[in-house]
Amino acid sequence: MSHGKQKQHVVGVDLGGTKILAAVFDGNFRVLSREKKNTRPELGVDGVIGRVAECVNEALAAAAVPHAAIAAIGIGIPGMVDRERGLVRIAPNLNWHELPLARLAERRLHFPAALINDVQAGTLAVKHQGAGRKLQNFVCMFIGTGIGGGIVLNSELYRGSSGMSGEIGHMVVVPEDGPKCGCGNRGCLESVASRSAIVRRVVAAIEKGRKSVVSDLCDGDMTRVRSRILAEAYREGDKLVRRIVDEAADYIGIGAANLINILNPQAVILGGGLMQALGEKLLPRIRKSAMAHVIGANPERVKILDSGLGDDAGIIGAGLAARAKVATAKERFFR
Amino acid sequence: MSHGKQKQHVVGVDLGGTKILAAVFDGNFRVLSREKKNTRPELGVDGVIGRVAECVNEALAAAAVPHAAIAAIGIGIPGMVDRERGLVRIAPNLNWHELPLARLAERRLHFPAALINDVQAGTLAVKHQGAGRKLQNFVCMFIGTGIGGGIVLNSELYRGSSGMSGEIGHMVVVPEDGPKCGCGNRGCLESVASRSAIVRRVVAAIEKGRKSVVSDLCDGDMTRVRSRILAEAYREGDKLVRRIVDEAADYIGIGAANLINILNPQAVILGGGLMQALGEKLLPRIRKSAMAHVIGANPERVKILDSGLGDDAGIIGAGLAARAKVATAKERFFR
Repeated sequence: MSHGKQKQHVVGVDLGGTKILAAVFDGNFRVLSREKKNTRPELGVDGVIGRVAECVNEALAAAAVPHAAIAAIGIGIPGMVDRERGLVRIAPNLNWHELPLARLAERRLHFPAALINDVQAGTLAVKHQGAGRKLQNFVCMFIGTGIGGGIVLNSELYRGSSGMSGEIGHMVVVPEDGPKCGCGNRGCLESVASRSAIVRRVVAAIEKGRKSVVSDLCDGDMTRVRSRILAEAYREGDKLVRRIVDEAADYIGIGAANLINILNPQAVILGGGLMQALGEKLLPRIRKSAMAHVIGANPERVKILDSGLGDDAGIIGAGLAARAKVATAKERFFR
Repeated sequence: MSHGKQKQHVVGVDLGGTKILAAVFDGNFRVLSREKKNTRPELGVDGVIGRVAECVNEALAAAAVPHAAIAAIGIGIPGMVDRERGLVRIAPNLNWHELPLARLAERRLHFPAALINDVQAGTLAVKHQGAGRKLQNFVCMFIGTGIGGGIVLNSELYRGSSGMSGEIGHMVVVPEDGPKCGCGNRGCLESVASRSAIVRRVVAAIEKGRKSVVSDLCDGDMTRVRSRILAEAYREGDKLVRRIVDEAADYIGIGAANLINILNPQAVILGGGLMQALGEKLLPRIRKSAMAHVIGANPERVKILDSGLGDDAGIIGAGLAARAKVATAKERFFR
């Protein structure tokens, strides 16, 4: 009997190109512990899976939850995922292609594993526990290394006709001579407003001789510049960072307005590393830019909100995927 | 008995700011006749409704269908419509606000009247009889005086959280210093790629001294320039018109790509006056521009199609709204 209760715990892992986050959830889906590790994709598949396992084991230890209590693990992946087959189709930041990750993780960790795209995970989390809890129609924008989007219509994740919906980072916002984007096109929202784009522009300006506190904050090592350093420079009033980050916010507002004009959602909800670090500064500016481009704009028309989940969106969504896997397994069992 | 059969006919009216189109449909929803009239909004509400009635009566006469055979009329409106209450909320091109048009039309024509937004009508038509017949998820772009969009998800028209979805003409495609749009913002797709925007640019260039066959084709009366004259000039190889129309096609392609990246539809389907007049010339260019901006572009990913309905999309959609009204009335009767 106690065994049945124990097996209600799940683990959620947010496996990014830079860092791994893991959390243990109890039967009421409360977070019992969180752990964090660098991903180090250069270690290869086994190396990265090993680091995931370490991170999970440390989270279990921190929560004092035994292995045997875990019903399933969910893993959020920055790439295309075949959920049915537990396959990573392609994850550029991890350099993975057609990898049977669910099976490999199960072999290493000994609990059932579910995969989920990281943006879909974040969107599910926003719907279940974040600013989208009481909404039926909304769009999430996650702004970090890239810019990803999740669309919820009639309270369900809208995946599109082949599971590729929500590529909002590749909306064209600078049609002529925009910067080159990782996707090969030019002028995508991601190429001007992602954290990586902001860092690239700040570093390029500093290398050209522009002064900025960023040089001090990263001790001269520009590869260390991430959202946190940008946020510190922004708060200190650094002119270069302010100008570039504010421009990014204006573009994010245009992207939000496009989504609003097309989809007429109840809200656009912002998340991801950049929002986590600088949300309270950027949100008013994003709102202003969006409202200047929404047709029939008024405060009742649409809300532009912070996710309310910060860095937790990914692990919560992965945890939800784990719970869904348990539920599906039970259904199959009782069928 | 014959009475029951007779009452299966419906009338569809496409009431635009420039012209009125009316068609009579038989019980199998085949078009029996079509008529066309100028709208002349300056005549005011009664004047315009009178012209609608004339147009409908001429269509009935042409089809040799008696008044008594008509079960209902559907009227497509370029504006916001309250379908339940038969109210035109706002139709800028007709200069109408809060007008109980269904009641006024019923009083004049003596059959039940249903109202529908013109873009929603066109989208329904594409789903039922056009290029969207066998598709579950697609987006329509109608390019004429303005640019409107209809979104079909899971085989149903997606209206958004307050019926305002599909304002794709107000996607921002020229973020800095774009031309002023009718909506008050700048750089909207409509401000660079609608038929009106194209005409405005062509006329402005001619007035600045640029040579173009358009001056001859319209006998010097620039107010007469519409899609047909643009099409003629384009086919004759007029350099000015080619440049401006091709630029518009490139922007339409960017708009289509944005919709594809966001929604992952099976197809983007193009209609409206400009496509009717120049579709076969523009479609290849629109496709090329779209595919250059779609992430993971390949011919299987998405199709970009002509509606296949030309000018008929509006009347067919209005006819479908009329049929839906009859069906609803019958349901009520038998309940």
